[in-house]
Amino acid sequence: MSTAGKPIRCRAAVGRAPGEPLVMEEIMVAPPMPREVRIRVICTSLCHTDLSIWKLKDPPGMFPRIFGHEAIGVVESVGEDVDEVTEGDTVIPIFVSECGECEDCRSKKSNLCSKLPFRVSPWMPRYDSSRFTDLNGEVIYHFMNVSSFSEYTVVDVANVAKIDPLVPPNRACLLSCAVGTGVGAAWKIANVKEGSTVAIFGLGSVGLAVAEGARLCGATRIIGVDVNPDKKEIGKKFGVTDFVNPGNCGDKPASQLINEMTGGGADYCFECIGVAPLVKEAYACCRNGWGKTVVIGVARPGSELGVNFQDVLDGGGKSIMGCVYGGIKAKSDIPILLKRYLDKELQLDEFVTHEIQFDEINKAFDLLIEGQCLRCVIWMNN
Amino acid sequence: MSTAGKPIRCRAAVGRAPGEPLVMEEIMVAPPMPREVRIRVICTSLCHTDLSIWKLKDPPGMFPRIFGHEAIGVVESVGEDVDEVTEGDTVIPIFVSECGECEDCRSKKSNLCSKLPFRVSPWMPRYDSSRFTDLNGEVIYHFMNVSSFSEYTVVDVANVAKIDPLVPPNRACLLSCAVGTGVGAAWKIANVKEGSTVAIFGLGSVGLAVAEGARLCGATRIIGVDVNPDKKEIGKKFGVTDFVNPGNCGDKPASQLINEMTGGGADYCFECIGVAPLVKEAYACCRNGWGKTVVIGVARPGSELGVNFQDVLDGGGKSIMGCVYGGIKAKSDIPILLKRYLDKELQLDEFVTHEIQFDEINKAFDLLIEGQCLRCVIWMNN
Repeated sequence: MSTAGKPIRCRAAVGRAPGEPLVMEEIMVAPPMPREVRIRVICTSLCHTDLSIWKLKDPPGMFPRIFGHEAIGVVESVGEDVDEVTEGDTVIPIFVSECGECEDCRSKKSNLCSKLPFRVSPWMPRYDSSRFTDLNGEVIYHFMNVSSFSEYTVVDVANVAKIDPLVPPNRACLLSCAVGTGVGAAWKIANVKEGSTVAIFGLGSVGLAVAEGARLCGATRIIGVDVNPDKKEIGKKFGVTDFVNPGNCGDKPASQLINEMTGGGADYCFECIGVAPLVKEAYACCRNGWGKTVVIGVARPGSELGVNFQDVLDGGGKSIMGCVYGGIKAKSDIPILLKRYLDKELQLDEFVTHEIQFDEINKAFDLLIEGQCLRCVIWMNN
Repeated sequence: MSTAGKPIRCRAAVGRAPGEPLVMEEIMVAPPMPREVRIRVICTSLCHTDLSIWKLKDPPGMFPRIFGHEAIGVVESVGEDVDEVTEGDTVIPIFVSECGECEDCRSKKSNLCSKLPFRVSPWMPRYDSSRFTDLNGEVIYHFMNVSSFSEYTVVDVANVAKIDPLVPPNRACLLSCAVGTGVGAAWKIANVKEGSTVAIFGLGSVGLAVAEGARLCGATRIIGVDVNPDKKEIGKKFGVTDFVNPGNCGDKPASQLINEMTGGGADYCFECIGVAPLVKEAYACCRNGWGKTVVIGVARPGSELGVNFQDVLDGGGKSIMGCVYGGIKAKSDIPILLKRYLDKELQLDEFVTHEIQFDEINKAFDLLIEGQCLRCVIWMNN
């Protein structure tokens, strides 16, 4: 019997209090409103942003909440005025909206939907209301337009990309955030050219995904920078050709070493940690004249960029830019990346270091906190 | 009788002490060394950079010195190994070198010669020595590879662009620094697209030249920002279509007003003053997703850029970059710009607000200090 139009009772891992283990409970998921889609989640993975906001006592930290924003699922039902997807379609939910109508969505140059701009909001983006309640009828908040730590979730149609159902779900879900961001930063934001040199500061999942994206774009030298010596071997799996450990450079800053290695700086530098002094370092070993420094890491609120004014002038056309979700326009770009995965050009397998069942979800938090994993995929098996 | 190979005795305006009027005296100009060119200066103009360094007691301030770096002249003689120009050629000397051999000079993307990098040095760039002495045999220092406040000067062949002798010299010389910088920033660095919107912070000669360059590139809306209300009418002569006086915006910052005027920010913003808070303002009204903020103004040493880290992330592919001489590669780009002047596409006439004789050179300093002029052309009449 179809569940369309009716509330669904299902299991969800609910964040009840900041920094405390998620609570597996039964919740009610309302039917999708117009322009919304209800999804049965197949699998999801845990991202550092879940962790960061889960720890926050103050807004944008809000509880009770269903976290999770890297996922894949199947459309269970759609609300009114949804033509783009239909029941049974395999989709990836994406935290960045793509309304398709605003100036940004119509432009190839921007992925920052201006009609439904991204916020870490507790509500659905189009209505400022929730589709989740607990069995006492209390509202449960949404997270980053996705809330995938639930067997069923509701997302706006602006936040789904329809994909080829043949792609293994525990690979496809990675593109939902971190891996998509890193690959996109190299591909869409920096637009890395064949034969170029790249330096990546921070080899977590995002940084390694930058390496993968840069390799895909034809970069011939990819320098990974990390204080964790284990990242040297891990990096090799993602195309990192040279490794610099800033802890082992003697008195030299890593930027100086990279300038020496490259004869004047890398063509593209990526900061994947989110600290101002590292942006300065990345910028300092980025080629004057034409280099691009892409800032991906999220910094503490109020941080300044940490770049010297004169250095910017002296850099000539060398530029600094940021990105949200690596500049990826999910509806068109995710299918391209998944095809390249199926064609064995884009490598995703090595990102998945752990796979667990939904019941064990708090273990994924432990693994990420301990720095034990790149991506931990959580299977719903519903 | 040819003067080639012999020292030339001629008049020069020599800076003898910081901030004190230049002294008109006779000096000796040695013959050019290999790869150097001796030039009879036709006319020169005064730039703010002359003024800034002329005031400095400490390095890069050095005395006695021959200032001046915007000029035009005729080749009097050439040193060994100079094929590019010959006696009688009309040339513009340029402070930025173009050796033609290094990776930067061979690339279309950079104008930052890495073989002879720009420094405010007291010497000729290739030999670290001077071609100027006073009549007592005391060395007089060079300035910015040009030193045009002299009837004759010596420059490296990397620092001359051969031009069409038919261009009026009191127009051509403007491209040597400020006007070339502004036009180049719009044309070469920002690469302003047809139909786009531009905001320019600071409508001095450089800012007005940005407007002129943006107009030339087809920008349809050019917003000038200046606290001097006179700049509203002046700006119109250079294609400025809208004027914002930050002193008349009430409680709103100029950036907010520009965001409202443009529905989300200008496609290109230019900072032409050199103060960090103005870079922040320019960046704040630069279109997220694809905007480019170009920093042209020179800031106090040690200044940070003044841009918030999170704003860079939120800006997506919006970028910040600097420039040296507007990204112009003089040898190829100056002839293009001069042709566009002769074709009445590029407007240069309105930049010249004053013309004086060499004897009166200190008046040019007064005019610039008083804010009375855009460009004051100084004729040598030698």
